[in-house]
Formats: sequence, C-alpha cells, structure tokens
Amino acid sequence: MNTMYQKRRADLVTWMARKSISVVLLEDTEGRREKAIRYFSGHPGDALLAITVTGHAVLCPWDINLAERMSDVDVVIPYSDFGRHPVTAAAGIIESIGVPANSRIEIPGHTPYPLFLQYVGTLLEHVVLCRETEGVFEEISRMRSIKDESEIAIIESACALTDTIINLLEKQIRSGKIKTELDAAMFIEHTARESGADGTGFETLAAGSDRSYSIHPVPAYTNAKIGTTGLSILDFGIMIGGYTSDVTLTLACGKINPTQEKLIGLVEKAYAAAILKYTPGTLTREASLAADAVFKRSKKSMPHALGHGIGLEPHEGPAIRNRIENEWVFEPGMVVTLEPGLYDPLHGGCRLENDILITEEGNRVLTNSRIIRI
Amino acid sequence: MNTMYQKRRADLVTWMARKSISVVLLEDTEGRREKAIRYFSGHPGDALLAITVTGHAVLCPWDINLAERMSDVDVVIPYSDFGRHPVTAAAGIIESIGVPANSRIEIPGHTPYPLFLQYVGTLLEHVVLCRETEGVFEEISRMRSIKDESEIAIIESACALTDTIINLLEKQIRSGKIKTELDAAMFIEHTARESGADGTGFETLAAGSDRSYSIHPVPAYTNAKIGTTGLSILDFGIMIGGYTSDVTLTLACGKINPTQEKLIGLVEKAYAAAILKYTPGTLTREASLAADAVFKRSKKSMPHALGHGIGLEPHEGPAIRNRIENEWVFEPGMVVTLEPGLYDPLHGGCRLENDILITEEGNRVLTNSRIIRI
Repeated sequence: MNTMYQKRRADLVTWMARKSISVVLLEDTEGRREKAIRYFSGHPGDALLAITVTGHAVLCPWDINLAERMSDVDVVIPYSDFGRHPVTAAAGIIESIGVPANSRIEIPGHTPYPLFLQYVGTLLEHVVLCRETEGVFEEISRMRSIKDESEIAIIESACALTDTIINLLEKQIRSGKIKTELDAAMFIEHTARESGADGTGFETLAAGSDRSYSIHPVPAYTNAKIGTTGLSILDFGIMIGGYTSDVTLTLACGKINPTQEKLIGLVEKAYAAAILKYTPGTLTREASLAADAVFKRSKKSMPHALGHGIGLEPHEGPAIRNRIENEWVFEPGMVVTLEPGLYDPLHGGCRLENDILITEEGNRVLTNSRIIRI
Repeated sequence: MNTMYQKRRADLVTWMARKSISVVLLEDTEGRREKAIRYFSGHPGDALLAITVTGHAVLCPWDINLAERMSDVDVVIPYSDFGRHPVTAAAGIIESIGVPANSRIEIPGHTPYPLFLQYVGTLLEHVVLCRETEGVFEEISRMRSIKDESEIAIIESACALTDTIINLLEKQIRSGKIKTELDAAMFIEHTARESGADGTGFETLAAGSDRSYSIHPVPAYTNAKIGTTGLSILDFGIMIGGYTSDVTLTLACGKINPTQEKLIGLVEKAYAAAILKYTPGTLTREASLAADAVFKRSKKSMPHALGHGIGLEPHEGPAIRNRIENEWVFEPGMVVTLEPGLYDPLHGGCRLENDILITEEGNRVLTNSRIIRI
C-alpha cells in the first residue's frame, strides 16, 4: 500500500506539519512546467495537485483518461469541473476537504504575480504563501535533488543506454554512416525509442564545426555536415520512465589548429580539476571555482554553469555554479552533470559532459562521454 | 534601415507612449519562455530585452556569439556582465540609458511573485508594473496574433511542407513502410530538416489505436504499431524560421466499430459547423460554442479548446475556447488552428486539425489534414 509516491508525500507532509503549512498546491501548465506533480503522484503533468497536512492528495488533471492510468492519489477530479482554472480548482478542493480558516496555503513559487493576486483575492479566509526560497518549493527541490533507490536504478539504466548510443555514434561517424547533424540526432532518437526508452530528454543539440561556437545552436540540428575538420558538439539525454541523462561529446576531427587544441586541453584540465570536488559535503560552488581557475589562468571564461542535477527534469537541483549565493552542497544520492565548455566564435566550441552519482565515499561517473579524435 | 524588427518595436513604442510606459522588459529563460524577444529582436531566446519609449533596444543575451549573428538591436551587452540575473541586468540597463525617476517600467506578466518583489525592491525610484491583462503583454499578444506579410509568407511555406509530409505519410502508411509511431515521428522530423525546415515545432504526438484515448499521450511516441485496427492519431507541426504549423491527422483503419464511427462523424460535423464562424469580426468563442453544440446533442464534450493562434509559439493568441471571459475576435491576418476532438478510454480518440488564415473575406485553410481511412 505504501507506494513510492505515498512515501514521498509522507516525507513532504512531515515537513509541512513542522512548518504549519496546511495545503501545498502544485501546478503544471504550458509555459510553467512542474515535474513535482509526477514526483508526488505519478501523473505526468497538465494538472493541479493538492497535498494536505493530513496526508490527503487530490489531483485535478486535464487528461482524465491518462490520470486514471498513471496517477496514484486519493482523489481525482477532472480539471474541467473547475473550468480548468487553477484558482477555481484550488478554492473548490480546499472547500471540499474542509480546511480550517486562517490556514497557511502555499502556492507554487513560480506563480506569476497577477495570478498570485487572484489566489489571494479568492482564498480570502486563508494565508497564501508564495516563496522562491525557504518555502515548500525549496524543500521539494532539496528532496528531489537526492534520488532514492528506485530513481538511481532508473537513471543508471538511462545512462547505460546513453553509453551504448555514444559508442554506436562513434562507430557510425568513423565509418561515415552518420554524416550530418540530422543523421546523428535521428540515430539517437530512433535507437532510444526502439530500445524502449521514452525518447530523448530534451531536444538533441548537434552542431557541426561551423556551428559549435554556440552553446545552444539554433536550430538545434540541421542537415549540415558533422564530424568535418574542426570541433563538432553533440549534447543529448536519454529518458526512461520520465528520468533523463544528459551528456555532451566533442568530436575533434582532422587537423585541429592550435586555438582548438588549447580549448580541448583547457576543458579536459577543468574537468579533471572539478571532479575532485564532486564529493559529499563539498559546496558545489567550489567545484565551479576549480574549473573557473583553470580557465582564468589562460584568460578564458566559461559562459555557462559547470553543471546541475538531473532527474525528472534535464536541469534541476543542485545548481553547480560560481554565484556567491549558491549554497548547494554535494550529498550522497545526488545525480549531477559536470560539463565544462569553451566557445570561440571563429574556431568553434568544445564541451565535455558526464553524469555523476555522488556516493558516501566520493562519486561514481555513470556515463562515458568523451572528446573523440577522428 | 527600417527592418521588420525595428518596425515592430516602433509599433510597440507608439503604444508605450500612449500609455506612459518608459521601459518594457522582456525575459526569456528556462521554464519561462518568451518568444516576444525573437519577435522584436531576431534573437531566439535566453536573454533579457529592454525596449524604451525613446525607441532604444538593449539585448542582454546568454549566448553572445549567437546574438551577434542573429539579433537586430541597438546595443548588445553580455548577460554575464550582470551576473546573469534579470533584476541586476534591468537595473544596469535602466541606469545606463538614464531613465528619469518615477518612470513606469513594465516587467513580464509571467514574472513569478518572488521575482516581482525583487524588481520592486531594486527599481526603487520607479513604478514597476506587472500585468496579465490590460498591460503591455496583452498588447504584445494582440500584435503577435495578427501576422504581417513576412510572417504569413513563412507560415505558408511551413504549411506547404506540412501538406507534402501529410501526403507522404499517407502513402507510406498505406504501403506499410511506416509501421510504428516511431517510424512516423522520425519520418516527419527527418523530412522536415532535410527540406531545410528548423524541424518540428513541438514534440510530435503519434498514438496508435491503443493510445489514442489520450489527448497528449505519454510518451509522445513509442515503438508501438500505428495504423492498426481502430483510431490512430498523428499531431505535429513543421517549423521554418521559428514559425510552426500545427496539424492533426486521424487514421481510421480496418473495421471501425459504431462507437468509433460516431466519434469520427461528430468530429467532422463539429469541424464543419465551427469553420463557418472563422470569419473576421466574429468572437472566437462563438466558433467554440458551435462545435460544443454539435457534441452536446450527442451528450459528448470536448476536453480541450477548439483552437489557438500559431506563430513563433505552437500556442499563442488568439484563444479559441468557450470560456465566458474569452473576448478574442477573429481578425484578418490571424493564423489559427481548428481542432475538434473526442476521446474514448476504450475505443480511442479522433481529432482533426488544420491551420487557417483569417482573411478580409472570410478564411483560407492553409493545410490539408484529414481523417484518413485505411
């Protein structure tokens, strides 16, 4: 009876009781995705989920057929019963479960200000909280950053398939079977789904040597050649059961010029320096600073963060970046990326990214992405 | 010198002057996408864009290399100069351009409440506005809902390629070359990019007869068979130059049972009734009610909106739905979808969706999606 969803909700409820929060509302809608709904209920999204301090979970899904197959909650009420409006639904649920007046109700930290005003104006008998930090959403982010056994198992399977695909990609690029960005992206997607994965966890980025100067090229992949002289980048993730991996390969092909060699060498050095800091109890910021220091010595700087957690989202907690306000600490059970990169507008870019499980003893690298010389 | 981006900004500035708004800030970030940045600057995203009533446009992009190639603005400042924080960047830009005290500054309507508080706490000398309705974001949505000539031309090319792909899909499903949801989705993506399109405008939904009960199946496509006995659904869009089409085919294969025939008949009837209302000057709500009336007579109801605008986003203004507060009116230059659908948990679903340009005289259907009997 105690499913993993019920266990996660029970953990949240313990926290809510300590903080005197009566109801937490989660909303997933177009433009504001909230994977915590899937985390706590199994339902993939487009829904409102209310969790009460008494341990009651009510789901209002947009797609009721899907909810009946995928969700594990106490009550499912069609969103259409409330005109598909989150505030109306919230008020209806709160009335139906008999929440006492003056209760503290926490709404999503990403609630737009105009919508926040509607909540406040509707839930007049209650105290409406909407916090980015120190509230329930920070707590959920913390909970989700530390994966349980079932999550680690599923991510390991996504990473294993990712490695299989990396090896096949290398083989097919060397043999000339994969010639274009499009070939590479299609091969990844096809192999993933054929193997029973959900697909890719985000749009694959495939940038031939003419486009790898960009961190995230637009379009993400084209019919242009990949693996021609210079630096090509492949950034992708394989999703299984809603959880995604996230890796980046750089292909260094043909005659690499000294500027490009320099980029490769620095990225490898930064990677080696940073991974030493991927240990439990270390501030993630320290890992970021270790990579920055390598680049700084060569008067370079990285235009993006060093890494991030992965899970139901391709980017989730912990943040691994150099901002002074970043106070995340590596903890056992976190699954994170390490992805130093440098980009030159003329000579292209180089990024190396792997997925790493933080363990009691240190870390375990789950993927085998690399800089491939062809 | 007067590019289309400059022209769009000039139109916005006229409105700002009338409403005494000194600066409009647009932000595109992960989790809160804002295609208006591309609309006004050419830059695809991950950026802050400030437009002043004096006609000045300042872009703070995350990817400076990309901005230098794609953006058309007065000034580009790397986001990293402001620690990649929107509030810091906003304050810096406002100081650098010398906005007088007590100016009205409008921030994005989707700004989360906690971030809104940071803006207010930082831009202390100014009046910070954040409005969902009646503010600049409603005005931008209105502007974007009416496509200019260059936009219509690009959408027409996306729709033409969509039709080519629909015809090829039908042929290859009939011949048995496309057997699975995966085959169909890969074929669409590959053909699109090979033809020079950006790709698909959103994740293709391909649901064989066992999964078409869901409006948006999860995963979006799998290795399961498509086009087997019963109802299969294919929902996809082709993106060119950032603009996407959006169509849905239903495949009715083999022996269709009376329940399924009923769904098909009702969807076709609702489509026929609604399109008569796709005319300039008509409330979009009336089209929605016309479809609802058809379903209601058979005691059915549609679990989603009848349609929406398409453009830089797969869903944008106008809304075409039955909510009483929906006051959108069809206007010449709007490009919208018409997509009635019904879904049965046992017998599967049927949806028919085409893209329609509203003209001075009425409308012009830009795509040729259909219910295909195999």
